[in-house]
Amino acid sequence: MKGNLLVVHGGGPTAVINSSLYGVITEAKQNDKIDKIYGAIGGTEAILKENFLDLGKTNDEKLKRLLHTPGTAIGSSRFALEQEDYQEMVKIFKKNNIKYVLFNGGNGSMDTCGKAEKACEGEDIYVVGIPKTIDNDLSIIDHAPGFGSAAKYIAATTAEIGADVKSLPIHVCVIEAMGRNAGWITAASALARKNEKDAPHLIYLPERPFDEEEFLEDVKKLYDELGGVVVVVSEGLKNKDGESIVPPIFKTERAIYYGDVSSHLSNLIIKRLGIKARSEKPGLSGRASIALQSNVDREEAILVGKEAVKAAVAGHTGVMVGINRIPGQKYKIETSLIPIEEVMMHERVLPKEYINERGNDVTKEFIDWCRPLIGEDLLDFLSFKDEM
Amino acid sequence: MKGNLLVVHGGGPTAVINSSLYGVITEAKQNDKIDKIYGAIGGTEAILKENFLDLGKTNDEKLKRLLHTPGTAIGSSRFALEQEDYQEMVKIFKKNNIKYVLFNGGNGSMDTCGKAEKACEGEDIYVVGIPKTIDNDLSIIDHAPGFGSAAKYIAATTAEIGADVKSLPIHVCVIEAMGRNAGWITAASALARKNEKDAPHLIYLPERPFDEEEFLEDVKKLYDELGGVVVVVSEGLKNKDGESIVPPIFKTERAIYYGDVSSHLSNLIIKRLGIKARSEKPGLSGRASIALQSNVDREEAILVGKEAVKAAVAGHTGVMVGINRIPGQKYKIETSLIPIEEVMMHERVLPKEYINERGNDVTKEFIDWCRPLIGEDLLDFLSFKDEM
Repeated sequence: MKGNLLVVHGGGPTAVINSSLYGVITEAKQNDKIDKIYGAIGGTEAILKENFLDLGKTNDEKLKRLLHTPGTAIGSSRFALEQEDYQEMVKIFKKNNIKYVLFNGGNGSMDTCGKAEKACEGEDIYVVGIPKTIDNDLSIIDHAPGFGSAAKYIAATTAEIGADVKSLPIHVCVIEAMGRNAGWITAASALARKNEKDAPHLIYLPERPFDEEEFLEDVKKLYDELGGVVVVVSEGLKNKDGESIVPPIFKTERAIYYGDVSSHLSNLIIKRLGIKARSEKPGLSGRASIALQSNVDREEAILVGKEAVKAAVAGHTGVMVGINRIPGQKYKIETSLIPIEEVMMHERVLPKEYINERGNDVTKEFIDWCRPLIGEDLLDFLSFKDEM
Repeated sequence: MKGNLLVVHGGGPTAVINSSLYGVITEAKQNDKIDKIYGAIGGTEAILKENFLDLGKTNDEKLKRLLHTPGTAIGSSRFALEQEDYQEMVKIFKKNNIKYVLFNGGNGSMDTCGKAEKACEGEDIYVVGIPKTIDNDLSIIDHAPGFGSAAKYIAATTAEIGADVKSLPIHVCVIEAMGRNAGWITAASALARKNEKDAPHLIYLPERPFDEEEFLEDVKKLYDELGGVVVVVSEGLKNKDGESIVPPIFKTERAIYYGDVSSHLSNLIIKRLGIKARSEKPGLSGRASIALQSNVDREEAILVGKEAVKAAVAGHTGVMVGINRIPGQKYKIETSLIPIEEVMMHERVLPKEYINERGNDVTKEFIDWCRPLIGEDLLDFLSFKDEM
């Protein structure tokens, strides 16, 4: 008997989450075990509200727009479900003849996915996870869709700002990258370099305690040498006591708000070193930029979407589609199915071997690992200035 | 007798300043009155140091890279010349058989250009200006090369952040745009809109005194309605007394440093309204992004470079190449030569008819004027969420 499929997006968007949705819809459309293709419009919250939209009738021209649409075309939420919500969810699935449920998201969504699968035990319902996170902090897999584009964005942006600063070397630029606990995106800025002395000149990761004095020393030395310096920092830098290096600006019962790390550090450079400094915080652009989407990332995002449909229809449940890198010279991946409890709520940070000794740069090992993920090579810039 | 040509870049780069350089070199290469094509490597300062590089031998493949190189390939400076420097400059021109001198820049560079022309009076030397500024604050001309790309950047970025925020409407985003005194770039964010209620929801320009209470009122109202709000603000917002809305963070004898307007306003929203807010400050990316270069802007930049060479060789001096819009349905421009004293140091700001009454948006007149400059249409995003 045919069943309906439901796809749900959780947490923050990426530049390719809609590419996974494209993969889901196109695969499901041609699968004769699937009847209706529902999107939960507005994340997990939408399941409980039965905010379902039939996506199956979308024409191809419209579907292709998903490949270059940022945000998430079906919406998302950060809604945390309670135990009774999961029981309610099962009833809603059955009522709507939903047999296949796909959760697309990061750590939080995989947690939801695992709990939903538990709640569906004994039912003819199959729950599969699709990995997604710009932060690349999902464990077990080689990397998550969304990260490659965020990596390409920060690398291209750092290269462009680097060219600007090199041509008019009058200041230090502090660029803030997303990733509060895991430094994967910040680290990827290193891919901007084509030649020696290219930006980024310094990289500070949240995995290492930030030392203000060492930072100022490093900046001063490079400024004296180059005149223009580009520093990339994680939004989540912490001191040796594990506290944010930016003092909190406001506290509510539910959250603490911190100021921007890039502003904080550029102000510090001005005040302590008397050197002109500016902050650049591309922020959400880093996950929403379509012009700097990685083609490899996009293709992999489509693939995991398709694989999730196939897995659910084949009767797998409680698994997430994983991406494994096949060892060898040429970059190649394969997908696998990973038991959801192995990935639930484990945050993967940058390993030690990817960070240099002084904690102000990444290693060649990291660059070799990361380069294939951004897809096509970055542009080659021309500098007559370098020829003098 | 053949003479040499010297091209000089002044002030901050744009995404297409190197496209003008491409125009200059390719035009000069095929002009038989021109012998060597020199680039001053490092702005006006480089003239006095005779830091000249022969660009004429650059092959075509390499030259084409100029079209997608951010920054300036021959460097730039913010060096202010003294009166005696201009006398020295004339000697250097004559010594190097430099007969044609092209200054590419904004208001400051056109001032230099005018003074250099005065100093060259009576000599067989021809001084021509090439317009360039992301800020679009050069007077007389319809618009300056560099602005179209900066406009496309802020429009595309605002549209992308808008899609992100619409799909996960949990906060107010304050995007900071470049342009301290003139609001042209900030205003161009309005081109992001395709449908009603699309971002940007509010636009604040430096031409209008900023009223904190009105701002908070506007934000609160939209947040209550939409959940996710995107605000674009100029980096140079001032209060009714003409003072920066951000308190100075540091003063030296030469300069006052202010904090970031976007950080300041997002903090204000958090503290005063208790609403989650974030700041986005793409900063230098706004003038360095090649992926979001406007094709119209690039072509016009090449054109003014070529026209400047032609004008100098034809014996014009003390003029800047202007861009005039030809009235009519279809966007069309023509170039002209404008006496440099008419453009020197006149800063053009957004006229009243381009700003709405409340001072929190632009008018349709502005959008109609601006749209052709960003070139190809922005991407069309798909939102199933809108269909619910």
